[in-house]
Amino acid sequence: MTKIKPSLPKGTRDFLPQQVARRKYIFNTIRDVFEKYGFVEIETPAFERLETLTGKYGEEGDRLLFKILNSGDFLSKVSTENLTTKNSAGVLKEIAEKGLRYDLTVPLARYVVQHQSELVFPFKRYHVGPVWRADKPQKGRYQEFFQFDADVIGADSLLNDVELTMILLEVYHCLGMDVSIKMNNRKLLEALSIYAGCPDKLMEITVAIDKLDKIGAEGVNDELQKLSLTSDQISKINEILNCKDLSALSIKFTNDTIGQKGIEELNYIFSKIKDSHVGFDITLARGLTYYTGTIWEVLANNVVMGSITGGGRYDNLTEMFGGQNMSGVGISFGIERIYDVMEELNLFPDDISKGVDILFVAREERLIDFVFEQVSQLREANISCEIYTGHPKKKFNYAEAKQIGFFIEVGDDEKSSGIFRIKNMNTREEEKLSIIDIITKFKK
Amino acid sequence: MTKIKPSLPKGTRDFLPQQVARRKYIFNTIRDVFEKYGFVEIETPAFERLETLTGKYGEEGDRLLFKILNSGDFLSKVSTENLTTKNSAGVLKEIAEKGLRYDLTVPLARYVVQHQSELVFPFKRYHVGPVWRADKPQKGRYQEFFQFDADVIGADSLLNDVELTMILLEVYHCLGMDVSIKMNNRKLLEALSIYAGCPDKLMEITVAIDKLDKIGAEGVNDELQKLSLTSDQISKINEILNCKDLSALSIKFTNDTIGQKGIEELNYIFSKIKDSHVGFDITLARGLTYYTGTIWEVLANNVVMGSITGGGRYDNLTEMFGGQNMSGVGISFGIERIYDVMEELNLFPDDISKGVDILFVAREERLIDFVFEQVSQLREANISCEIYTGHPKKKFNYAEAKQIGFFIEVGDDEKSSGIFRIKNMNTREEEKLSIIDIITKFKK
Repeated sequence: MTKIKPSLPKGTRDFLPQQVARRKYIFNTIRDVFEKYGFVEIETPAFERLETLTGKYGEEGDRLLFKILNSGDFLSKVSTENLTTKNSAGVLKEIAEKGLRYDLTVPLARYVVQHQSELVFPFKRYHVGPVWRADKPQKGRYQEFFQFDADVIGADSLLNDVELTMILLEVYHCLGMDVSIKMNNRKLLEALSIYAGCPDKLMEITVAIDKLDKIGAEGVNDELQKLSLTSDQISKINEILNCKDLSALSIKFTNDTIGQKGIEELNYIFSKIKDSHVGFDITLARGLTYYTGTIWEVLANNVVMGSITGGGRYDNLTEMFGGQNMSGVGISFGIERIYDVMEELNLFPDDISKGVDILFVAREERLIDFVFEQVSQLREANISCEIYTGHPKKKFNYAEAKQIGFFIEVGDDEKSSGIFRIKNMNTREEEKLSIIDIITKFKK
Repeated sequence: MTKIKPSLPKGTRDFLPQQVARRKYIFNTIRDVFEKYGFVEIETPAFERLETLTGKYGEEGDRLLFKILNSGDFLSKVSTENLTTKNSAGVLKEIAEKGLRYDLTVPLARYVVQHQSELVFPFKRYHVGPVWRADKPQKGRYQEFFQFDADVIGADSLLNDVELTMILLEVYHCLGMDVSIKMNNRKLLEALSIYAGCPDKLMEITVAIDKLDKIGAEGVNDELQKLSLTSDQISKINEILNCKDLSALSIKFTNDTIGQKGIEELNYIFSKIKDSHVGFDITLARGLTYYTGTIWEVLANNVVMGSITGGGRYDNLTEMFGGQNMSGVGISFGIERIYDVMEELNLFPDDISKGVDILFVAREERLIDFVFEQVSQLREANISCEIYTGHPKKKFNYAEAKQIGFFIEVGDDEKSSGIFRIKNMNTREEEKLSIIDIITKFKK
């Protein structure tokens, strides 16, 4: 076996124990809020049939899917012509049937149709797990990253949109993050395109507006010009984009049923949610094509970072898998960005990666038996502890690196007296206690 | 977009909410025990460089690795000769650089070498996650399945072997499973091969003995004969395999240093663990080649199922990645089998997939606002609840399927009086309570 230098595929990461602890803190915080609101967790496999994934994310998405090579003698049945012409696209269909999931939404659509008879509706599910994209890796962008999605499937009631907004507020409150939750409604963008006299260009206009954060108002106007819109159309679009509130918009859309519907929907939600962190923003567009109602985007205040959560209401999630038309509404948390924001703003509680309550060190090898007996008693009482078995010189390093709360060294004195000097690793204070005292002190 | 029938790749599974809840119960139970003993969690990516994985699991293992196709025009640089001769093995090297992880052990070895300077030793880590093998799917065998591994790296002390045995006992106690923990030591198998005069055949003999459960004593003897052992050698092997305890073995191995060392190691462990669920079994062999000391296997009593946990001590985990020689000891829980046993023996607690505390139903659409206000007050007090937004006829179905504890229907009477009839979904009993009363009743 030749020795190889250990390394990872580009765009992937290992997580050290402290990072895992912090990630779990984020996951568990979000999880607890969703469960409080009645969401249940599902899981799907890492890979799906390519048939399921292909064509769902546009041409670029198809390109970014990781494909899994068929097992065995995968070339045996490939057409010779495709091989000799090195036709990668043609050969691909013949040698790969599976791909790694690209997001959690298409798997959800497949899942709901496939298990429809086993689920109750409205189906309120959350799903957390890695997804994979063969994107060019760069700072903050990975080929493997985690999504945390929650959706309500099969319920038209806007109350679900209200509840998802409440959940966003509660999650970020629990994480201690100061955020701005921007909301809009796709119907208002549709009304905008009608107002400007170019309803046929709705998607293109939406995509252009979505870039506002990145390219600014002038950039958006450049994009709009590329769509061959007249200057009159562009100025009408800007007229709408400059509306700061729903009443201003309502005047513009007086005669537009779709616009009025969008305003009504947002007014309903805002009537139930009075929180200064939530606001209307007509320039919020979201890139995804399938949204048809409410859309959300969450930004972290006091830090430069893109959207940390996004979501929206859609009408036809399950149609692509032959399911009856089921509407839904959902949000997706960007875990890596939330992590980065929390790290930058120092928001992780100190005790997240706290180690066991007590580390025991035997001064001599022969005392190990005695130490083991003490530790067994503590564990019996459900107190977490470790017996150090590493190099004697590194014992304090070990206790500090693992953020262990208390430290006890056991020598012959301790063995004969049954009294232990227990050292608080934070305050450096020492107490002299028997095992019974220690159990009393630590028992939860 | 053509409609496609939703389905999964063979050998993979979706998990329904109740299954996820049960799986989490298993994961969290094991996790809690490991953390009590000072183990920390790590994560590694789903895929590794093929260079990292290939050659670590034997020829069969290499075949069973899922390979990921390189992105883009993957054929462009492939040698024409390999293509025209349809040389799958040759082409493979040119079109795939990554593979899905096959277990959590090789990623651990890579991780430890790669992050050595960032870790403290003894490194006590656990890792839970899916692994993938292109095995022929069959009952109980999947292409994607979960492993839950824990290892102590960089510590020779047998105290770690003791602690892992304690952990096995505690985990299965917490899960409510009656198990038999069989233990042996690879040094005894080495001594056995010396005793039989065929130390050069150690691995082959080990593999043959490992099949005892499946093929019986006669089957093992057939296997041994295939190794061209003499009948005298085979009878000497059987002589050892028939030893029921360490003292009987000690007599056989009087003059064998390795045998005596193995006995001494096991005696040390047994001296600390007095539990009728743990026993010595000289016929326990374990298939894996790299074990050199203690080995474990756990069987569930009262049910027909293979090993549900296995493990052992090894000397050279990190050598393959150029790390300094680090010994280790670890165990691996077979999550799918544990799940199946617990389901068969009905060991999952009933409240695992319990839904929210209270489901609210508005009798009329116009009462939703009022209901939302009540629910918001309860959530403020951290009481979990849902507002039903589905079809009125299905409200009880919904409450039952989601195992919701209590049910409240709100009509005009409730709105005007502020008093709610709250129905216990298990006992069918009803109480009349105000929101304040409800908060008092449910507040944790």
